[in-house]
Amino acid sequence: MFKKVLIANRGEIALRILRAARELGVRTVVVHSKADADSLPVLLADEAICIGPASPQQSYLNIPNILSAAIISGADAIHPGYGFLAENAQFAEMTAEHGITFIGPTPENMRMLGDKATARRIAREAGVPIVPGTDALESVEEALAAASEIGYPVILKASAGGGGRGMRVVHNPEDLENAVLQAQEEARAAFGNPEIYLEKYVEEPKHVEVQVLGDGERVVHLWERDCSIQRRHQKLLEEAPSILPDEVREGLVSAAVKLAEHIGYTSAGTLEFLVDREGHYYFIEMNTRIQVEHPVTEMITGVDLVAEQFRIAAGEGLRLRQEEIEARGHAIEVRINAEDPDRNFRPSIGKIETLLWPGGNGVRIDSHVYTGYAIPSQYDSLIGKVIVWGADREEAIRRMKRALAETVVDGPGLKTTVPFHKKVLDNAFFRRGAIYTNFIARRMSE
Amino acid sequence: MFKKVLIANRGEIALRILRAARELGVRTVVVHSKADADSLPVLLADEAICIGPASPQQSYLNIPNILSAAIISGADAIHPGYGFLAENAQFAEMTAEHGITFIGPTPENMRMLGDKATARRIAREAGVPIVPGTDALESVEEALAAASEIGYPVILKASAGGGGRGMRVVHNPEDLENAVLQAQEEARAAFGNPEIYLEKYVEEPKHVEVQVLGDGERVVHLWERDCSIQRRHQKLLEEAPSILPDEVREGLVSAAVKLAEHIGYTSAGTLEFLVDREGHYYFIEMNTRIQVEHPVTEMITGVDLVAEQFRIAAGEGLRLRQEEIEARGHAIEVRINAEDPDRNFRPSIGKIETLLWPGGNGVRIDSHVYTGYAIPSQYDSLIGKVIVWGADREEAIRRMKRALAETVVDGPGLKTTVPFHKKVLDNAFFRRGAIYTNFIARRMSE
Repeated sequence: MFKKVLIANRGEIALRILRAARELGVRTVVVHSKADADSLPVLLADEAICIGPASPQQSYLNIPNILSAAIISGADAIHPGYGFLAENAQFAEMTAEHGITFIGPTPENMRMLGDKATARRIAREAGVPIVPGTDALESVEEALAAASEIGYPVILKASAGGGGRGMRVVHNPEDLENAVLQAQEEARAAFGNPEIYLEKYVEEPKHVEVQVLGDGERVVHLWERDCSIQRRHQKLLEEAPSILPDEVREGLVSAAVKLAEHIGYTSAGTLEFLVDREGHYYFIEMNTRIQVEHPVTEMITGVDLVAEQFRIAAGEGLRLRQEEIEARGHAIEVRINAEDPDRNFRPSIGKIETLLWPGGNGVRIDSHVYTGYAIPSQYDSLIGKVIVWGADREEAIRRMKRALAETVVDGPGLKTTVPFHKKVLDNAFFRRGAIYTNFIARRMSE
Repeated sequence: MFKKVLIANRGEIALRILRAARELGVRTVVVHSKADADSLPVLLADEAICIGPASPQQSYLNIPNILSAAIISGADAIHPGYGFLAENAQFAEMTAEHGITFIGPTPENMRMLGDKATARRIAREAGVPIVPGTDALESVEEALAAASEIGYPVILKASAGGGGRGMRVVHNPEDLENAVLQAQEEARAAFGNPEIYLEKYVEEPKHVEVQVLGDGERVVHLWERDCSIQRRHQKLLEEAPSILPDEVREGLVSAAVKLAEHIGYTSAGTLEFLVDREGHYYFIEMNTRIQVEHPVTEMITGVDLVAEQFRIAAGEGLRLRQEEIEARGHAIEVRINAEDPDRNFRPSIGKIETLLWPGGNGVRIDSHVYTGYAIPSQYDSLIGKVIVWGADREEAIRRMKRALAETVVDGPGLKTTVPFHKKVLDNAFFRRGAIYTNFIARRMSE
């Protein structure tokens, strides 16, 4: 096992990694921006190194400063968390060149899957169903021809994209040209790469993703999560297992393992699928990192995914055999964001003066904030995650309602997504599992 | 299910019951003393009723006031928690006489098992091994005769006792007379009943207890807990499962079910056993209530024991079948007491100015305190429980160490048992599972 890990991230995921490291006996170096000097992972770390000002470009994306911090502190591994440099193959390569282990997939894995168009080609090779669509588009004419062959509605997506940026649904040919130009522009602005592609738009699908772990030789799945509760492609509530017939679930997890094995995948990864009303599933992309919603999988399987990332990176290989990974009960995670759900979820940050996280049976809290903590304005608004486990979905829902009823995150001007989640949990469609990616737009509008 | 439950307790167990009730959709009335007006269960309850001053006799043991509160508030059930009135058969009867359901065993169950000498007779009837010993002692002469037959060392215990009070180990006949008189006096002072009995003193045993649930017709076990880490018969750290060969475990849980079935036991209960170095086990007593350490069982089985108490009391019967109750992984609980372990564990209360409970994967917190809470001096010193789950005992120990490393409970003059637990977790005997009831005296003395 490693002696010392540098955690190249912030917020709750930095703390999550720190906790795994500590349980494995690995010392921790947390790098941070000036704006994060008071956050919990920084305060709890064995060592903390400031790597720049608040701006992510100058700190959490500042590869020279991060590598310097690793070298100076004598770290023998770097964990990138999610976001920032987590899916940056070049960073992974530079880390390795300095004799430091990158805790994550190989740069080759990341390159193959980080580009969505390439990922689609790989899925086709592996025999995994994908949404009918194109490779990278060369022209508007190509887009028109493809759309008329596939049939409207179609969706345009950025090859380098994620998080909903660069995506555009087009319902008829007249709107396509403008949409292509706008999507390219958005993709260029967001990812520095204007490349886009086109797919059949699956209406009212479930977003279901399969967690896998691989060691380059063998891949196991850890069942699936339903992440259909999204607002503008941003997940807000996730659960495991999904509400799907067992034969669909079996198909999904087998497809995921097949694809990951096809490329000799290493570390933790997630294969995202759309599932339509008839139970057809289509692979859409693979995230080559730990995800925000990984705890629901940990709750039902009992497997510590971040610890497994450490073990695989340290060369211990995959300890788990598929038949040992049993799903038990039901888990739900809600993301507590410092946003005002009544004002279009706009960021609503401030100082936390009163904080009471829920506790008790079946409740897990992952959060980097504390009483007196001032939420910095420069980063995403996630201030914590409340995760619950129940013997079945009904118990998990009741438990989450109970947990949120006792949650207090209060301060001047501070709003959170807690009231929004309470409404979701009370929604009759949600309660009976009728959740699709349009749930919020269709079922939660006043 | 009930409409409204009155919670006749305080502290973390009042909150535990409130949480179960809320998840079941049952409204909550928390009764409290003046000293507890600011505690979390009181603040979170649907209704809170002050039933008297700080003195337990005038509040938490004040049956007329508690029953009046139940009647006035329209509660259709009372949950007594542990301690106070939890094992008071008369209180259970009076509750029933007012048409209110007592959430717990029948008064007959409580009478049969509350008295240890009677419990021993029942165990003999059920064919469950007990420590060789006597019924209630009539005289010092009887004690001398019995001790010489059984062989020294012997232990004297109060028939109405618990928590170590009234207990006395005697190593030779010369000391017996004095010990009998002292034990009787202690028993009278502590329980209002001088009756004592005598047993063979099992040297260096493990204290292992079996959790059961019954509905008057059928009994299931939920495996066992090891509670050997005790200081003066007060448990400090508990874990599940115990470190025993499987055949001993099977014998224990079967014996527990046999005894509980023999008396048609209803609700949650715990059968305590001593297990000697050869794996012989002896039933010592049954606690007819939920216990402080019940969460470790919940963590390994996924069963919500308090919710099951509600369901059984509401006449829904025992839903669980034995073959469904599977133990998974390993759980450890540490009791965080406001005591100074460096000064003989003397109470060390105060106002909590900084509070940070641990979180993350596999960590559960049960606590009624919060930042700014002043711990009242009139009650026991338990301010919270940290419970962890791991895939195996080693992972659970590492996780608990990690959790305690990030725990902060601070205030002027306030000390807790956190540093003590850290030492236990690092102790080589503890780590290899060599834990017996004399662990603290033998392995933790400086």
